[in-house]
Amino acid sequence: MRKNHFHLPEGVIYLDGNSLGPLPKKAAERVTQTVGNEWGDLLIKGWNEAGWFHQPAVLGNRLAPLIGAPQDSVVLGDTLSIKVYQALAAGLKMRPGRKVILSDTGNFPTDLYMAEGLINLIGNDIELKVVSPEQVEDHVDDSVAVMMLTQVDYRTGRLHDMASLTRKAHDAGAVALWDLAHSAGALPVDLEGCKVEFAVGCTYKYLNAGPGSPAFIYVRPDLADDAEPALSGWMGHASPFAFDIGYQPSPGIERMRVGTPPVLQMAALDAALDVWEGVSMHEVRARSIELSELFIREVENRCPQLKLVSPREYENRGSQVSFAFKEGYAAMQALIAAGVIGDFRAPDVMRFGFTPLYIDADDVMKAVAVVEDIMRNKSWDRQEFKQRAAVT
Amino acid sequence: MRKNHFHLPEGVIYLDGNSLGPLPKKAAERVTQTVGNEWGDLLIKGWNEAGWFHQPAVLGNRLAPLIGAPQDSVVLGDTLSIKVYQALAAGLKMRPGRKVILSDTGNFPTDLYMAEGLINLIGNDIELKVVSPEQVEDHVDDSVAVMMLTQVDYRTGRLHDMASLTRKAHDAGAVALWDLAHSAGALPVDLEGCKVEFAVGCTYKYLNAGPGSPAFIYVRPDLADDAEPALSGWMGHASPFAFDIGYQPSPGIERMRVGTPPVLQMAALDAALDVWEGVSMHEVRARSIELSELFIREVENRCPQLKLVSPREYENRGSQVSFAFKEGYAAMQALIAAGVIGDFRAPDVMRFGFTPLYIDADDVMKAVAVVEDIMRNKSWDRQEFKQRAAVT
Repeated sequence: MRKNHFHLPEGVIYLDGNSLGPLPKKAAERVTQTVGNEWGDLLIKGWNEAGWFHQPAVLGNRLAPLIGAPQDSVVLGDTLSIKVYQALAAGLKMRPGRKVILSDTGNFPTDLYMAEGLINLIGNDIELKVVSPEQVEDHVDDSVAVMMLTQVDYRTGRLHDMASLTRKAHDAGAVALWDLAHSAGALPVDLEGCKVEFAVGCTYKYLNAGPGSPAFIYVRPDLADDAEPALSGWMGHASPFAFDIGYQPSPGIERMRVGTPPVLQMAALDAALDVWEGVSMHEVRARSIELSELFIREVENRCPQLKLVSPREYENRGSQVSFAFKEGYAAMQALIAAGVIGDFRAPDVMRFGFTPLYIDADDVMKAVAVVEDIMRNKSWDRQEFKQRAAVT
Repeated sequence: MRKNHFHLPEGVIYLDGNSLGPLPKKAAERVTQTVGNEWGDLLIKGWNEAGWFHQPAVLGNRLAPLIGAPQDSVVLGDTLSIKVYQALAAGLKMRPGRKVILSDTGNFPTDLYMAEGLINLIGNDIELKVVSPEQVEDHVDDSVAVMMLTQVDYRTGRLHDMASLTRKAHDAGAVALWDLAHSAGALPVDLEGCKVEFAVGCTYKYLNAGPGSPAFIYVRPDLADDAEPALSGWMGHASPFAFDIGYQPSPGIERMRVGTPPVLQMAALDAALDVWEGVSMHEVRARSIELSELFIREVENRCPQLKLVSPREYENRGSQVSFAFKEGYAAMQALIAAGVIGDFRAPDVMRFGFTPLYIDADDVMKAVAVVEDIMRNKSWDRQEFKQRAAVT
C-alpha cells in the first residue's frame, strides 16, 4: 500500500514490523532537519519556533484517528511502561474501596510488572489477579477496580473482544485499561465507541516511529479533568513556566505529560505518521488478514514441523501469526540469516508480523519458500544459530 | 576549550547552555548514522548488533566520571522527573517509619511535583516539607526519610554544599537525594566521596545531548541491590526476555531501567559525551568562574538597572549568573533578537549560563556590550518583546 515510503534493505523480507517498524524515508529526513535546523540553528528557541513544546499533544491528535479516539484525548511521551503506570494509578483512584486489578497471562509482562510496583507502593491490600485470557470475563466482578488487558497477545496474536469485555467491565462498575501495543496501526480500534476509560500503546511497532519512540496514553475526555496524575511532572502542570512550588494539573489530557519530551524521537514519529495520511485502517485490516491467511495456509501445507499457536479464525487474531517449534530460537536465527526477519518469544514461539503498508503477497510467498527450505534442510541445527543474544 | 566541536550559529552568543546545550557536530553525524545504518539497515537486529540494548548502562559508565561516580552505578533513561520519582520511592522504602521528605524552595518545581504525586499515592502521612535553602540544615532531623535537593538553584545559581549537607543528612539517619541538573558538566561533583545515596540529572543542559535527551540516575553501589524499583518495568527485570509473569529486579543499577530506551536520543548523547573525553572538570570549573566573574563585573559596571540575584562569591555559585529586572522577560527577548541568547525565569530573572567548552572571554565581552546597549536604549520596551511565548 505504501511500500515506496519505506527504506527496506535489499534482500530482506521484513516480517517483524510488529516489534520494530522499518524506517520511513521521510523520518530520516525529518530527524536530520530537526537535529541540524532546529536544535543546531534555533537552539533553545526550538521549543517555541519549531513547536517542540506542543509536539506531545499535536502528535496525539494526529494519532487519535488511528485508534478511534477524538481530538484532544491522546498525548505522547515516555514509554509504554510509564503510561501503563499512569493509567493504572488514575484508574485505581477512580474506584476507591475496590481492591483488584484484573489482568491475564497474555498481557505483556511489563504491564504486570508495573502493576506490581504500583501495588508495592500503595499497599492497602490491592491485589493483582492474573487469570488466563479465556477466564477474564468470568472474573470481572464488583471487586475489580481496573481491568487491564492487552488487546492482542504478543506471543500468539490472540485478539480480545474490546467492545464485549469493556461492556462487562462497565457492567461490574470497573474501569477498562487497554494496551494497544499490537493494535495501533494493525487493526481498527474504536476507543470512543467502546467507551474505554484508558488506553496506552507504543509507536515503534506498526506505527514505524523508530527504536524507543514515545508511547501514548488516552483518557476518555469526560474523565480527563478528574484523572489524578500519579507522575505529576512539570510538563503536565497547568502552568509549567510559572514555576509554582505546588502542583496543579493541566486541564484535560495534557496532565498526563510528565517531563521534557524526546524531541528527536518525536520528529521521527511525526514523519512516520505522514505515511498514514489517507490510509484506511479497515483496508489495512483486510489486507493483513489476506496475508496472514496465505502465510498460515502455505506454511501448514509445506512445513509440518511448525505448529500454529495463533487462533485459526482471523476474527480472533491481530496482525501477526505465530508458530511453535522446539528449536524455534535457532530456526529464527537461520531465517534471519537467510533474509526473512521475524522474531522469537520464549519458550518456543516464532512470530511473523504482517504489515500491509510495506508487505505484499509476493513477499509472503518468498518468505514461505525460505521457511520451507530451512525446515526441510534443518539449517537451524548449527551452533551459531543456537547461541542466545541479549535481545531475543 | 572545545569550541570547534560544536555547531554554533553565525552571529549568536549562546549563554543558554544551562537550559539546552548546542549541537555537537558529531551528534548530527551519529544520529544520521543511527537512523540510516542502524534503524534503516539493521532493523530489529540493531538491539544486539548496534548495541542499543546496552546503551543505558554503557552511557552510564561514560557519564559516571563526570559526576564522581564509580563504574556500574549510573544508568540512563526516561526524564529527570521519572528518575526523581524512582529515587524518592526507593529512598522512602529504606527509611520505613520516617515521614518527612525534606526539600527547599530552590528546588526545581518538577522535583517537588513528583514528590507530591508520590505522596498522594502512598498516603501513610508522608509529608513534603519545603523550607528555604538556608534553612535546610536546621530541618534535617530524625523525622526525615529523604533529603531531596537540587545542588544548583535553577533561578539564582546558588550552590549547596553537597558534602556538608549530605553529612548532616547521614548524621540524622536520612537518605540524601541530589538533583544534578545544573551540576553535571558544570562543576566537579563527588558523589562517591560524599557517600550520596541517590543522584539524578538531565543530559540536555551542560552535557549537550539535545532536546529531550535521557536523564540519569545514580544509586550508591552498596545499596543498589536493595533499592526497590517503584517503576518496575521490563527493561529493569533480571531477565527481560524470559517474559516471566512476575517481576524480579536486575542486580545493581540496571533495575532502575524502566521501558524501551530512546535509541535516537541515546545516539546523540553518546556523541555528546565524546566531546568530554580528556576534559578536566576542574579546568571547566576554573574557566567558568573566570567567565562568570567577568560578566558580573562588567554588567554591574555598565548596567545599573540590573540587580545581581546570584551569590556574589563564586564558591557559592554554579555555572550561571542571574540578574533581576522588572521587565526581564521583554529584555531577554530583545537580547535574543540581538543574538545574545540567555533565558528568563519567572517572575523577573534573566539567566546567563557560562559553558567554557564553547564560550570564551571574548564572547562574554561582546554579550555585555549588547546587554548594555539594550538597557541604555530601553530596546526591550516594545510590544513584540513583551508577548509571552508558550515556553519562556
